[in-house]
Amino acid sequence: MTEMMSKTDLEAALRQIGEERYHSNHPFQIMLQEGRLSKQQVQAWALNRYYYQSMIPVKDAHILARLDTVELRREWRERIIDHDGTETERGGIVKWIALADGVGLDREYVMSGKGILPGTRFAVDAYVHFVRDRTLLEAIASSLTELFSPNVIGVRTRGMLEHYDFITRETLAYFDKRPVQAKRDSDFALSYCLEQATRPELQEAVMNALKFKCQVLWAQLDALMHAYVEPGHLPFDAWQPGTHARNGDATDRAA
Amino acid sequence: MTEMMSKTDLEAALRQIGEERYHSNHPFQIMLQEGRLSKQQVQAWALNRYYYQSMIPVKDAHILARLDTVELRREWRERIIDHDGTETERGGIVKWIALADGVGLDREYVMSGKGILPGTRFAVDAYVHFVRDRTLLEAIASSLTELFSPNVIGVRTRGMLEHYDFITRETLAYFDKRPVQAKRDSDFALSYCLEQATRPELQEAVMNALKFKCQVLWAQLDALMHAYVEPGHLPFDAWQPGTHARNGDATDRAA
Repeated sequence: MTEMMSKTDLEAALRQIGEERYHSNHPFQIMLQEGRLSKQQVQAWALNRYYYQSMIPVKDAHILARLDTVELRREWRERIIDHDGTETERGGIVKWIALADGVGLDREYVMSGKGILPGTRFAVDAYVHFVRDRTLLEAIASSLTELFSPNVIGVRTRGMLEHYDFITRETLAYFDKRPVQAKRDSDFALSYCLEQATRPELQEAVMNALKFKCQVLWAQLDALMHAYVEPGHLPFDAWQPGTHARNGDATDRAA
Repeated sequence: MTEMMSKTDLEAALRQIGEERYHSNHPFQIMLQEGRLSKQQVQAWALNRYYYQSMIPVKDAHILARLDTVELRREWRERIIDHDGTETERGGIVKWIALADGVGLDREYVMSGKGILPGTRFAVDAYVHFVRDRTLLEAIASSLTELFSPNVIGVRTRGMLEHYDFITRETLAYFDKRPVQAKRDSDFALSYCLEQATRPELQEAVMNALKFKCQVLWAQLDALMHAYVEPGHLPFDAWQPGTHARNGDATDRAA
């Protein structure tokens, strides 16, 4: 039987999981921020991650539907507003489409979801199903990867701007507001989990939910690495480098 | 708008999908049957595929729950009996455990599901969710990969027996009955789909369901290839080659 941890120890354990398993440690992520990917490989990343981005409000709506107080729902709905936007403010999804456009992809194609890797779809859908089917505590705990994103966003944005001549600050506008939003959201989710995990097995469930989410992110980069960095492994119907360019984009033909 | 195909043409189109996309064409599968994998790589295959095998009756129970005639349910329940077995006859799952044991893995560990790749879990769970959430016609059509398995089983069994000294006919007993069962099951599913796909869009849905299922199988081998054939990509918590050996098994340490 596991022993009950103090809140401080549980928080430390969660941060340790992120330290080890967050996708900032993935070889593809490191290649991305160090400028070691071709333009086409960056396009493959933007295209596939669009599917993840597009499902975030769906994931959050499943959680919203399970929250039973006005206060909790008001807190959680901010996430949906951040990603879906308002009449006057672009949301995260629209900004991600602009990112894909900015790296030279046709936006209709990106939004169609055609050409994403099966590994992307299976991982993202696993996340949506997890928040729908597991306990509310686990669903909320699976969002705790946001604890680790603000720092990574800084490193990645600086690296991409420095190393790729086809990347501008405007292209990466998606990331401008994310650190503040992610800190607000993860502060809330962390407090919730520390409060609600009142038994050792609930503390363990929280840690496992965070590990699961790290797998969801990691598996997406594994799929990109396998299909677009290691030669000869492109699955059927996956985006072929050099196709579906935005009008007027001179797509880099070197893989 | 797509045109309506004759039943003969739809069947030909489905067989063409299998010809191109069935996992018999996957590099990992070809390495497996040509004797080009290490014992540990064969163990990784057996361990991960156990999770797929273990979920087949769950998948079939979802379909069973959606069939609304005695005749259809009697037909479909045979699949569950094949995999779960009877008092007097070993089912497919028990035979797969024997296979994993036969290649030298600890059976408790195999059955725990610990150590399988996230890519395996996400792909298999995607299959279970697909048959639960899509139309019954799509759910049944996703089983049509069995049209292509009898031939592949023969090639794989012969190849594995010829090339690996740690493989015996008894180890591969799982495959003995599968060709007959798969033919019976896929004959039924094919007739059902050809009958029920009465509009062009339903014919297309049947073809897409088969493509989806091919992705489920293909993605599992992609995950194995990435983690266990290409060096340096083992995800967290995945089975480490050389560990969890069956008692008395002299595990081949060369990777």
